[in-house]
Amino acid sequence: MTDFNQPISGNDLARFSGPNTFMRLPQATSLDGLDVAILGVPMDIGTSWRSGTRFGPKQIRAESAMIRPYNMTSGAAPFDSLNIGDIGDLAINTFSLSDSLRIIQESYSAILSSGVTPVAMGGDHSITLPILRAIAEKYGPVALVHVDAHADVNDDMFGERETHGTVFRRAYEEGLIVADKTYQIGLRGTGYGADDFKEAQRWGFQHFPASELWNRSLHGMGAEIRRDIGNRPVYVSYDIDSLDPAYAPGTGTPEIGGLTTPQALELIRALRGLNIVGCDMVEVSPPYDTSGNTALTAANLLYELLCVLPGVTTK
Amino acid sequence: MTDFNQPISGNDLARFSGPNTFMRLPQATSLDGLDVAILGVPMDIGTSWRSGTRFGPKQIRAESAMIRPYNMTSGAAPFDSLNIGDIGDLAINTFSLSDSLRIIQESYSAILSSGVTPVAMGGDHSITLPILRAIAEKYGPVALVHVDAHADVNDDMFGERETHGTVFRRAYEEGLIVADKTYQIGLRGTGYGADDFKEAQRWGFQHFPASELWNRSLHGMGAEIRRDIGNRPVYVSYDIDSLDPAYAPGTGTPEIGGLTTPQALELIRALRGLNIVGCDMVEVSPPYDTSGNTALTAANLLYELLCVLPGVTTK
Amino acid sequence: MTDFNQPISGNDLARFSGPNTFMRLPQATSLDGLDVAILGVPMDIGTSWRSGTRFGPKQIRAESAMIRPYNMTSGAAPFDSLNIGDIGDLAINTFSLSDSLRIIQESYSAILSSGVTPVAMGGDHSITLPILRAIAEKYGPVALVHVDAHADVNDDMFGERETHGTVFRRAYEEGLIVADKTYQIGLRGTGYGADDFKEAQRWGFQHFPASELWNRSLHGMGAEIRRDIGNRPVYVSYDIDSLDPAYAPGTGTPEIGGLTTPQALELIRALRGLNIVGCDMVEVSPPYDTSGNTALTAANLLYELLCVLPGVTTK
Amino acid sequence: MTDFNQPISGNDLARFSGPNTFMRLPQATSLDGLDVAILGVPMDIGTSWRSGTRFGPKQIRAESAMIRPYNMTSGAAPFDSLNIGDIGDLAINTFSLSDSLRIIQESYSAILSSGVTPVAMGGDHSITLPILRAIAEKYGPVALVHVDAHADVNDDMFGERETHGTVFRRAYEEGLIVADKTYQIGLRGTGYGADDFKEAQRWGFQHFPASELWNRSLHGMGAEIRRDIGNRPVYVSYDIDSLDPAYAPGTGTPEIGGLTTPQALELIRALRGLNIVGCDMVEVSPPYDTSGNTALTAANLLYELLCVLPGVTTK
Amino acid sequence: MTDFNQPISGNDLARFSGPNTFMRLPQATSLDGLDVAILGVPMDIGTSWRSGTRFGPKQIRAESAMIRPYNMTSGAAPFDSLNIGDIGDLAINTFSLSDSLRIIQESYSAILSSGVTPVAMGGDHSITLPILRAIAEKYGPVALVHVDAHADVNDDMFGERETHGTVFRRAYEEGLIVADKTYQIGLRGTGYGADDFKEAQRWGFQHFPASELWNRSLHGMGAEIRRDIGNRPVYVSYDIDSLDPAYAPGTGTPEIGGLTTPQALELIRALRGLNIVGCDMVEVSPPYDTSGNTALTAANLLYELLCVLPGVTTK
Amino acid sequence: MTDFNQPISGNDLARFSGPNTFMRLPQATSLDGLDVAILGVPMDIGTSWRSGTRFGPKQIRAESAMIRPYNMTSGAAPFDSLNIGDIGDLAINTFSLSDSLRIIQESYSAILSSGVTPVAMGGDHSITLPILRAIAEKYGPVALVHVDAHADVNDDMFGERETHGTVFRRAYEEGLIVADKTYQIGLRGTGYGADDFKEAQRWGFQHFPASELWNRSLHGMGAEIRRDIGNRPVYVSYDIDSLDPAYAPGTGTPEIGGLTTPQALELIRALRGLNIVGCDMVEVSPPYDTSGNTALTAANLLYELLCVLPGVTTK
Repeated sequence: MTDFNQPISGNDLARFSGPNTFMRLPQATSLDGLDVAILGVPMDIGTSWRSGTRFGPKQIRAESAMIRPYNMTSGAAPFDSLNIGDIGDLAINTFSLSDSLRIIQESYSAILSSGVTPVAMGGDHSITLPILRAIAEKYGPVALVHVDAHADVNDDMFGERETHGTVFRRAYEEGLIVADKTYQIGLRGTGYGADDFKEAQRWGFQHFPASELWNRSLHGMGAEIRRDIGNRPVYVSYDIDSLDPAYAPGTGTPEIGGLTTPQALELIRALRGLNIVGCDMVEVSPPYDTSGNTALTAANLLYELLCVLPGVTTK
Repeated sequence: MTDFNQPISGNDLARFSGPNTFMRLPQATSLDGLDVAILGVPMDIGTSWRSGTRFGPKQIRAESAMIRPYNMTSGAAPFDSLNIGDIGDLAINTFSLSDSLRIIQESYSAILSSGVTPVAMGGDHSITLPILRAIAEKYGPVALVHVDAHADVNDDMFGERETHGTVFRRAYEEGLIVADKTYQIGLRGTGYGADDFKEAQRWGFQHFPASELWNRSLHGMGAEIRRDIGNRPVYVSYDIDSLDPAYAPGTGTPEIGGLTTPQALELIRALRGLNIVGCDMVEVSPPYDTSGNTALTAANLLYELLCVLPGVTTK
Repeated sequence: MTDFNQPISGNDLARFSGPNTFMRLPQATSLDGLDVAILGVPMDIGTSWRSGTRFGPKQIRAESAMIRPYNMTSGAAPFDSLNIGDIGDLAINTFSLSDSLRIIQESYSAILSSGVTPVAMGGDHSITLPILRAIAEKYGPVALVHVDAHADVNDDMFGERETHGTVFRRAYEEGLIVADKTYQIGLRGTGYGADDFKEAQRWGFQHFPASELWNRSLHGMGAEIRRDIGNRPVYVSYDIDSLDPAYAPGTGTPEIGGLTTPQALELIRALRGLNIVGCDMVEVSPPYDTSGNTALTAANLLYELLCVLPGVTTK
Repeated sequence: MTDFNQPISGNDLARFSGPNTFMRLPQATSLDGLDVAILGVPMDIGTSWRSGTRFGPKQIRAESAMIRPYNMTSGAAPFDSLNIGDIGDLAINTFSLSDSLRIIQESYSAILSSGVTPVAMGGDHSITLPILRAIAEKYGPVALVHVDAHADVNDDMFGERETHGTVFRRAYEEGLIVADKTYQIGLRGTGYGADDFKEAQRWGFQHFPASELWNRSLHGMGAEIRRDIGNRPVYVSYDIDSLDPAYAPGTGTPEIGGLTTPQALELIRALRGLNIVGCDMVEVSPPYDTSGNTALTAANLLYELLCVLPGVTTK
Repeated sequence: MTDFNQPISGNDLARFSGPNTFMRLPQATSLDGLDVAILGVPMDIGTSWRSGTRFGPKQIRAESAMIRPYNMTSGAAPFDSLNIGDIGDLAINTFSLSDSLRIIQESYSAILSSGVTPVAMGGDHSITLPILRAIAEKYGPVALVHVDAHADVNDDMFGERETHGTVFRRAYEEGLIVADKTYQIGLRGTGYGADDFKEAQRWGFQHFPASELWNRSLHGMGAEIRRDIGNRPVYVSYDIDSLDPAYAPGTGTPEIGGLTTPQALELIRALRGLNIVGCDMVEVSPPYDTSGNTALTAANLLYELLCVLPGVTTK
Repeated sequence: MTDFNQPISGNDLARFSGPNTFMRLPQATSLDGLDVAILGVPMDIGTSWRSGTRFGPKQIRAESAMIRPYNMTSGAAPFDSLNIGDIGDLAINTFSLSDSLRIIQESYSAILSSGVTPVAMGGDHSITLPILRAIAEKYGPVALVHVDAHADVNDDMFGERETHGTVFRRAYEEGLIVADKTYQIGLRGTGYGADDFKEAQRWGFQHFPASELWNRSLHGMGAEIRRDIGNRPVYVSYDIDSLDPAYAPGTGTPEIGGLTTPQALELIRALRGLNIVGCDMVEVSPPYDTSGNTALTAANLLYELLCVLPGVTTK
């Protein structure tokens, strides 16, 4: 038995009770002693179609109440291995995208300087740019596993260069990521022209379109990516719209023909052993999540990400 | 400026952030120093028609995030006057109604012995019987303001004598309440026979059927009740189904032709000056609250109840 | 104790159990011995905007499971006074409006010839024309209490003369109703021109626009209508869209600024003493009834109509 | 018969067909020849709690398809009196609140310089500040009829001075409105302190709290305001959250105890005769409008506003 | 042509009409002459997370109205082979889990002593323990095909030993089932520790985790189970949460990464030839079934279970 | 750059703005110059279970706003190759199925005589019979790719021979289609007897039951069909209920065990090279599309159909 933070057990307090923290972990009031900080970045002002992701962290936490601590498939026991706390939400400025991005970057710098691994619940995908800026400041350019329906490599949208659709072009331009260790998985949908994806491929980005993954296990692909990355620091950015809308309807820009949750689980489990220095789960939009499955899935995938963080042991 | 607990301001942290406590008050970890304890009793196993009230406390807290501390109508400033904390939920046994009622009574005895005023979020109405038992243990028989579509004076249901429909017969039989200082407000709907209401009236219960209140301000009636009660200790039990389903659809046994939220506000505001020793807000069933209004209304009425607790000053 | 049909008691069988008949009455397999036949006319092919009323009878029956037999307000005990059965739905032809209207008229002729009073659950309002034809065949022209947001006196729609918007012009032209004993209550909304209502008024129809009823009890108006009708046979056609959409959102052509359920209850209760020879409740559209209140309200208003049928005693 | 734009008739084309313009008016491609321009300002980045108002114009237009051209209550025939067109939406920058406000002001200046009266569908309430700037540029300070649950007179939110909660303080400070001809109607809810409303009253703003209007007709109050304003140019800003959430659940910051739709209709109809130079309907948030009533109500109230514009004749 | 009970044909009566029995079979009033009794056990007081399964039987019946009698894939014609009736719901005591379990067991003993095969619609999974007690009383220990996301082998929950999470440990301890002929299919999700599943495996339970079934046909596995069971009496307990929430969102404890409906159909069809002595379909929770698919799927799977009962012929 | 119609770019006008045409194409006011006409046939009076498809075209258009012009998978650029316009809805008679079918046929004859390829958004499946009549009038009997859960080969329903369930029997009898070049893909569900499908197979129809397609790519099957059809004119009729309800819940007669959206994309993309002379997408019922995925999927599949029309080039 460790003295690490533990989720409240469903046998101690009914699951519909307790704090609205991730998996009913104790609410952390400081970073001291934490190995991993789960945090919310509740924001939707970087979205181009449907909004609502400002309620993402709240809803992901609510659905996480049903998750138990032990991973029955992989045997991972994250709460026995690491001290994990929910540090609440960043105090973004909901009226200004640019100011919020500044706040996120500064907050991340503080977290990273404490030696804590940040695990973010978005919010729209625009949060990942300031996160990567802080990450690169500490680690230099990182490998990137980016699971998403969209490549998010637009140059600008309505003249703005920092939105949820331009993140990874900016990250490339600013040298935040290692281009040929950037893996974009689940891409699909329509575009403005043939060059939408090709330019990123010329930079070195490795593309795994959804249509090449249909009906396949992602175990092998995940293992290949893991080998390709090696020991480099890697960031995992997980856009819930990588999943098919049958699995995750509650998101801002859904695209049909996406991945399945079995594929998502296979992919994340295959990342075990990587030097993950941070990760995020973005674009969960509760007002459009009529079935509640989207937040439920996001909560479970975040748990699976915790299970593959460096230092997590299995039983 | 007091050093009492204060809700987090919407100008300090976006309203969609922060702990899921009532009005984003600090989560209290003990009763020490509290004047008022807000608590959840998440239970639906005492209901006869639709379930779902086990999620009532969670949802009422979620909707309470929008409430600001100062009452613009009455001038009440409860958080400047009393130290109010959210002490979380009681750890009921969701598989046993009788065991849960026992747990509630014991928990209330503990709270009351600390001198803290309990304000409960249900849960179905069966929670009020053990609450009244603990209340009467401390205060003797109390006056009762009971706002509800139903009189809840059945003798038994399926042979069970402690359910959400038998509470006030039991309370009468056990001498927990002062019969002729018991006010049942908002009664309506259909019954099994003419005697359903008449027997309770013979005990001394004072009935205010909804149909006699339509299109009327409840200010006067509330004032009259207040005068009639005088300085006696009084408990307020508020069933959200007292409201018309247009105002509060998310409840287990809705009845048409009910009260309006303006009437609810008038009634509660008229209770100012009473010696309220506890109160509850019950029967909010989130799965049926498709508009979200029910939990929003419950949160606001709970706030209004806080505003009329003894000791609250106005500005 | 009578040997009339009785609803299953909620104390004998949980309310979420039992047959999906109105109020869980026995399913009648013949008209023999019945005083009143409750029946469904599940149809939506006569509607001009939203469809869905084909599921009206099913949903009204489902929500009626919570109604108890005794009217706590008026003291009416319909099931002690009359033998009431649910005879199921008419077997309409869902692909042909004209054929369905023929089937309805023939079915009603059979019911009326058995001396049974028909109480219909629609379906869209087009069902009322064939009903009135059968009614007039037996009783001659009848008085009509028509509660509705719309006068339904168009001449034709897309060239069709028998739709949910033309019913009462046809009824007038065919002499099915007594024009100056026709009361249209709750009218509002927009029209094609000033003459939309005025022509019907010239025929003798008495109009009670919703805007003249706001914030008023309908008790007096109902009493006045009752006196004006006297002993004449009268038919009551109740369109749920007479209610404000806050009270009854689940309907095909909602109009803001409507009646309240208290007003609906006052109106129906005031009709006690009339020689009602049939009635209907139409335009409940479950796919648009997200709160469930509309079917709940319709079920309760149907119950109130049963309570004012000739022969019902009070206790 | 005029050659003004007319809505498509429901007897020419089924109501579920046709363009998604307001009331199925022709889509205007220029301002030439128009008296009134209906336009959308689809924006939600100025909101502090729930987002979603970016879909307001789309949904209001969708629900407006059921409205017919003639006002059966007042006799107004707006499309016979004025040439009214739907000019589509402003091309706001959804990633920048400040840039969007600039775009709105410039667009309004262009519309106003053409002599066309603008009628806006929001969007969150922050749109009204740039609108008033353009209005004041043309007309000087105007009278303001502001119907809302909130006074929107905060000084700043998260350091930002232009949000949906600061509009009317800015308008006062910039001299865009005549302070003592500013009427704030429907105010309620909670605040940060006693001074929240009082400061605005000291400027001269006239407050009509919802609690003073409950159960009252607004006809008289509207008439009084009309007389008080006289011939001054007046702007009408209508926040749908002025209505009780029972009537308008689909909005970002709902407050219980609000106005009813009959009151809304009475109020707007009482404004007939004023020199209205523009108006807006804001804060309709379709993702939260589960019943659809909110957009339906907004569409009807906009129609009623058209009916009281200067120059509209009655029949 | 048989004189067995037949569902009402959709060509005789529109599918939105007719009794709310399973597939619109005649409501059976006794067990006489029946081979198979379909019954509801409407209960949710044994659930630990979301409630609502008390409405499961009602909703499954409602969605079953669209099913036609002949199985186009397997050629099975159950209503030509067996006399099947819907006998309604058991009259459980909704306020007491222990009393309800007693009622279920006694009711099942009566059904089984009549030689009728019971097919249950739950209700939460706690109903299966008393069912197995009655089954074992008649048949001795039976083989068990248990399709579920969860093994339901907890020892107790909140001190209670009979809940929806402890069923199969109790069944094992009481010798109701043959341990090494117990097949748990679809297991996944998180647990309290490595031993959660291993202990049951040590008893002999055969586990088929969902993750080993992804992207596979279940035809072969089903055939293997069939051969392994041989002629033994076998009970089939089907928890709808075995399916992925994309296919069955309306359930109390959903787990991502589950089975698909094609897999469910393959599995059930492969069970043809087994000596099935009873079966159930549990954990359908209509309040969470926003799409309606869950009840629809449950109804179809129940139909498929009817198609593989002993004695059903194919055409 | 062509002068063909182009969708409004999401970078010119926010996606939540703009006309409610398919993909925000210009609203075509005539057929002149068009190669392809997208049109709505908003009708639900031919349905036997749930209605609501009258709102199909409106909702498909709304969801199409997110689609960009270029097909990232196939490289197709339909708007660079063909002049495509949205010509609005046919003015059907919503009160008469037979009259509506007449209107559809006449409208199609006019479109086809202009040399324009019609692409229809339904509406229920009964629209395809008059479409095929007009198609056959121009092209003679055509090959038919019919993707559907149901074969729609009933002889009559309630005595009516032209409904959504009889279309392809009529088409066969009237010689509108080439029987042995008719491919019915995705069939499943229950039937009235073994002959339901066999008779159509005897005519020559080629059946591809869903159960034979589970877990398979449809690329090969599509290629085979393409080769089998050769250069014949072919019509594609796409019923959204061919998809599993997990992917497309919003339809009138959902059947479990259906196709996936990846399979739908594979199938349509394999049809490239066929001489498609028209196509439709039917049975999208928005009131039942709680997640919005159904209309989203229909919009995307329609786009994919545009991408395989004759003359579309790739980049």
